[in-house]
Amino acid sequence: MTSIFDQGMAPVEANYAVQSPIDFIERTASVYPEHPAVIHGTIRYSWAQTYERCRRLASALKGRGIGRGDTVAVMLPNIPAMVESHFGVPMIGAVLNTLNVRLDAEIIAFMLEHSEAKIVIADREFGEVIKDAVSRLESKPLVIDVDDPEYGEGTQVSDLDYEAFLEEGDPAFQWSFPENEWDAISLNYTSGTTGKPKGVVYHHRGAYLNAIGNQMVWSMGMHPIYLWTLPMFHCNGWCFPWTITAMAGTHVCLRRVDPEKILQLIHDHQVTHMCGAPIVLNTLLNVPESAKTEIDHEVKSMTAGAAPPAQVIGAIEGMGIKVTHVYGLTEVYGPVTVCAWKSKWDELPLHERAQVKARQGVRYHTLAGTMVGDPNTMEPVAGA
Amino acid sequence: MTSIFDQGMAPVEANYAVQSPIDFIERTASVYPEHPAVIHGTIRYSWAQTYERCRRLASALKGRGIGRGDTVAVMLPNIPAMVESHFGVPMIGAVLNTLNVRLDAEIIAFMLEHSEAKIVIADREFGEVIKDAVSRLESKPLVIDVDDPEYGEGTQVSDLDYEAFLEEGDPAFQWSFPENEWDAISLNYTSGTTGKPKGVVYHHRGAYLNAIGNQMVWSMGMHPIYLWTLPMFHCNGWCFPWTITAMAGTHVCLRRVDPEKILQLIHDHQVTHMCGAPIVLNTLLNVPESAKTEIDHEVKSMTAGAAPPAQVIGAIEGMGIKVTHVYGLTEVYGPVTVCAWKSKWDELPLHERAQVKARQGVRYHTLAGTMVGDPNTMEPVAGA
Repeated sequence: MTSIFDQGMAPVEANYAVQSPIDFIERTASVYPEHPAVIHGTIRYSWAQTYERCRRLASALKGRGIGRGDTVAVMLPNIPAMVESHFGVPMIGAVLNTLNVRLDAEIIAFMLEHSEAKIVIADREFGEVIKDAVSRLESKPLVIDVDDPEYGEGTQVSDLDYEAFLEEGDPAFQWSFPENEWDAISLNYTSGTTGKPKGVVYHHRGAYLNAIGNQMVWSMGMHPIYLWTLPMFHCNGWCFPWTITAMAGTHVCLRRVDPEKILQLIHDHQVTHMCGAPIVLNTLLNVPESAKTEIDHEVKSMTAGAAPPAQVIGAIEGMGIKVTHVYGLTEVYGPVTVCAWKSKWDELPLHERAQVKARQGVRYHTLAGTMVGDPNTMEPVAGA
Repeated sequence: MTSIFDQGMAPVEANYAVQSPIDFIERTASVYPEHPAVIHGTIRYSWAQTYERCRRLASALKGRGIGRGDTVAVMLPNIPAMVESHFGVPMIGAVLNTLNVRLDAEIIAFMLEHSEAKIVIADREFGEVIKDAVSRLESKPLVIDVDDPEYGEGTQVSDLDYEAFLEEGDPAFQWSFPENEWDAISLNYTSGTTGKPKGVVYHHRGAYLNAIGNQMVWSMGMHPIYLWTLPMFHCNGWCFPWTITAMAGTHVCLRRVDPEKILQLIHDHQVTHMCGAPIVLNTLLNVPESAKTEIDHEVKSMTAGAAPPAQVIGAIEGMGIKVTHVYGLTEVYGPVTVCAWKSKWDELPLHERAQVKARQGVRYHTLAGTMVGDPNTMEPVAGA
């Protein structure tokens, strides 16, 4: 028997038709146009400016013949062009392939060939590797040279400058949603422990959901000031390029992990959130007192991987940094389980508190049906 | 030319396959089983207990032959059974039709017939109306009598008691996700200004998204303590039954708007959030000083409809209640635009601040593509 809800009274599918995280930048730029979007050294871009730069990028890519399903690879540290790529590339249905900047020319060449990259946007710091990698390819992609004024070193990779390329684009470019939310938004290669690297394809819908899940598990609120200690090439920065944009936050860029600089930036910009491996927190502890900038407000840090030992957590908390432990992997858009904190644990002695904190926890709100099990019995762990 | 992403490298659709807000209760009950879920007078249910009651309800409904696409109508004030219906009914694919308790027997009969309701769960306060309405129907639904011990009045509507009905159900009932996220989750009738009431059908996906959108626009965070000043029969309480559950909050029940009681509950339970029409805030101002319980913490209130005048907003803020203005309608799951606050507005004099607050604002994060326009020109309003 069919229900009345299969007939005339069915809901309208046109509502909420397509889920994509690129929508967040349109909202934020229209609601908070003057709010700081990106800080990089002496560079400041507002949300209106960042959105304009992303639309220029999308438009310029389109002008060069890039479209739906084409791969745009980037070899970039955490600088403004990297944030912009997370929006400009998918705005035209193209797929962002963020390359691990630590890899060598051979493996980069493999990835560029395997992904059929049509364009490579590369920072001069990795100029030698990219030139070497591209020289190995039969079909050469168009290479765009990013000359970061805050860096000023490295090897030029092409005559086509990133800023000049943006000039080719229309700042009012009318981008469009993907026709299908299951369309690819990005491609991330795994490290290839067991052979050649494998490509993990993210779709718009999944990236949208994990971006939302990040702010839910972290009770993030509006206007986070987010320091980029986690490489954006790693699982698209755990989807935080989209999360921070959705929450009208500020992306504080960081070319490389430099503990003294991290402390300085946390202080100067009143950073509220950061992510990364536990090693990042460790390096902060090892900064000599004379070079240490004091943190005068609470900073939240999300860490994945093996949890730091109790004494490290204690020392980190003593600095004013509150640690949240998560677990994830490339195949699931970054973190998907979180040690969801309970207030009663606040009272535990440090050692026990650290033990609880080390748990990789429970699933994200946005990840229905994941079961966190005991690896020995495969039984679910209650309140893990 | 097909892209490689249409071939072997396509993302896997099985990830994040179905979006439904009923998933939130499973997560919250497993992560925070002992946290208070529902408070109603002297009644206290933890999340473990509430989840168990919802599963009993689903199981008992199934035992009575209810299944996918069947309508379960409820005529309930904001009491525990109403929260439970928002999960127990859709857990078996049935559709929740929350009836407006202010309507008369004739119109209720129309709705029950039109929705082909198989079951009606009714509180004794509306016993006379329900008995009258059901007597007019050719095909009689099964009626379940809710005898709220915190009320103790009204007219019994049936020999089948709600608590006894829950006993029929399995507390460990294995419910399932809807096969399709576009399946109906609820049915809300409009007031029928221009003729017969019209049925608005919500789907699981839309309810999921608006539930998430609520906490994003409100920077809600974990464990909100939510006072039910907004009727849950109104657009499913703007999707807050699902939002509060997702955030592992506490539902503080309220049978009817009673300003003295509201102030008492805010104080006793340290309520953090509430919603409603501006009239609710107005009634709070009119409580005589002698009967007024002071609010000693910040309460956030979301109001829709015509914004209160500046002096009312000033007085309400003076009481410790921070107002957020939203706009929505039955057809879009409740609120969909919000006056997204900017910190620079904090400095404005009260009169100007109230004017800004009265704006119905910008779209929810989860509502892509909505345009807020000037009704005269139909031009979009920048940063509305």
